[in-house]
Amino acid sequence: MKRYFVTGGAGFIGSHLVDRLLSQGHAVTAFDNLSSGQLRFLERARASDRFELVEGDLCDADSVARAVRGHDAVFHLAANADVRFGLEHPDKDLRNNTIATFNVLEAMRLAEIKTVAFASTGSVYGEPEVIPTPEDCPFPVQTSLYGASKLAGEGLICAYAAGFGFRTYIFRFVSILGDRYSHGHVFDFYRKLRIDPTQIEVLGDGTQRKSYLFVHDCLDAIFTAMQGSHEPVNIFNLGHDSYCCVDDSLSWICRELGVSPQRRYTGGKRGWVGDSPFILLETKKIKSLGWSAKVEIPDAVVRTLRYLRENQWLLEERA
Amino acid sequence: MKRYFVTGGAGFIGSHLVDRLLSQGHAVTAFDNLSSGQLRFLERARASDRFELVEGDLCDADSVARAVRGHDAVFHLAANADVRFGLEHPDKDLRNNTIATFNVLEAMRLAEIKTVAFASTGSVYGEPEVIPTPEDCPFPVQTSLYGASKLAGEGLICAYAAGFGFRTYIFRFVSILGDRYSHGHVFDFYRKLRIDPTQIEVLGDGTQRKSYLFVHDCLDAIFTAMQGSHEPVNIFNLGHDSYCCVDDSLSWICRELGVSPQRRYTGGKRGWVGDSPFILLETKKIKSLGWSAKVEIPDAVVRTLRYLRENQWLLEERA
Repeated sequence: MKRYFVTGGAGFIGSHLVDRLLSQGHAVTAFDNLSSGQLRFLERARASDRFELVEGDLCDADSVARAVRGHDAVFHLAANADVRFGLEHPDKDLRNNTIATFNVLEAMRLAEIKTVAFASTGSVYGEPEVIPTPEDCPFPVQTSLYGASKLAGEGLICAYAAGFGFRTYIFRFVSILGDRYSHGHVFDFYRKLRIDPTQIEVLGDGTQRKSYLFVHDCLDAIFTAMQGSHEPVNIFNLGHDSYCCVDDSLSWICRELGVSPQRRYTGGKRGWVGDSPFILLETKKIKSLGWSAKVEIPDAVVRTLRYLRENQWLLEERA
Repeated sequence: MKRYFVTGGAGFIGSHLVDRLLSQGHAVTAFDNLSSGQLRFLERARASDRFELVEGDLCDADSVARAVRGHDAVFHLAANADVRFGLEHPDKDLRNNTIATFNVLEAMRLAEIKTVAFASTGSVYGEPEVIPTPEDCPFPVQTSLYGASKLAGEGLICAYAAGFGFRTYIFRFVSILGDRYSHGHVFDFYRKLRIDPTQIEVLGDGTQRKSYLFVHDCLDAIFTAMQGSHEPVNIFNLGHDSYCCVDDSLSWICRELGVSPQRRYTGGKRGWVGDSPFILLETKKIKSLGWSAKVEIPDAVVRTLRYLRENQWLLEERA
């Protein structure tokens, strides 16, 4: 039994990770400020006596330093994950992603914990010239505050690996789908169509191409990487080898809902500033360790939608 | 006449930049907390009625927001520039480089100033696989808190270019030499040899290879880039096409001083954690705009040493 500390443990991916670690027989502390995390995601976990929830904010360095003591490793998943609204509050990504990551690393250093896994993002590639984008693609230029804040987090983590002997895992995710999903295009489309199924606004021109990964495939990949790779710095893209365009995904959603809305496009190649028109990550590196995605993208979209239909409370929570 | 705002304007490179801008007929505000900047570097500038010094700290967002108003463009040079001691105070680079850069960008956004030039560093390349290292080398892995903090600053600047229409210049410097130089290997060697000319400790094994650039060549390059390149994001390596090893540089210093110390090596390929054993940046991009370095490295080392010999007060200040 190991003791794991999961920041953002009440969130979409974090709560699944908590469940998985508990099912493996480990002890788990979830650290979450519940700003977007949900206690209901932790219903199963809270039934375990190997689980503890610490309600706290990573911006409070002291509280994370206190809470992290006595753990063997940290999964740092807490973040402001909304790439779209960065420009409305430019300091949010800096505080919740960059400075929060620093606070986690310092807390670990003081507590002599040396293994950290970090949820980064394919957004650090900006609008890459090489697609599918490998981990060692040309030095990227940031196009969003979100990507910049995650890149900064990656840099800090690598510096702690070099300077303090940390073993670090950096996962650059595409968008993740699945149960407990609570923001992103499936969420937005479903919420709009619930209100008015006759028409729908689509950000951009609908041709943006994106790869998506199902949450359990994502967790499988994380465990595969941490079992199979033991460098000081281990960086992995996590994504699906295929992609879909926004219009395709909307069609699957509409078919599942039995609706045929008129589509209105806001226009342009991008849905918002910093939106990359084509996100497809090369996954050779993680696949070389024996992992592959099991859930295809159309299935992942539909399963996510079904989850939301069965959990309408989440739409109210996030309204 | 334009109005320029120079952070770190009392520092080594900043004060030369201030002098240069004043000599071009512009108005200049230097913003400096005088933690490593020197009033004596600004003696010439302070004689001009087009110059103003604002003593303030970039960590105080309000003070920079007030001071920056009414300027046409910002040169953001203020930083904690000591790559070597990052591990002794891990939050220093984050505060003085990353958060300070954010505060500058936010101040500019509020004041509707959209042009910024940023002193970044070749340290963002970590230990690069490609040497000479081009601007678009493979996605680097950070090896120092200093490099990580500057990379984070670059990311923020690029995100402001994409999100808020800034025009941005990012200069990745090698180590700069010249008058007013006040930290680095020439400074350290001279300080040690002044105390004991019979022996000297050399960090690493003496074979570390580094490129250096003379400060006036550096400023020429900055102006060349800003006159010749007008993308939203303009990234340039600034360095010399040749390099020397630490032992060579020490020999030039000893010859100039007329001393022959016994050399004691601390050993290892690196002088400290995060020291890159070979720093040589590709400069094709800036050279394509017509710039080239005028001062050779041995000459730059000796001229720097002569400056320090004539300005012993600086060694006392920085002791």
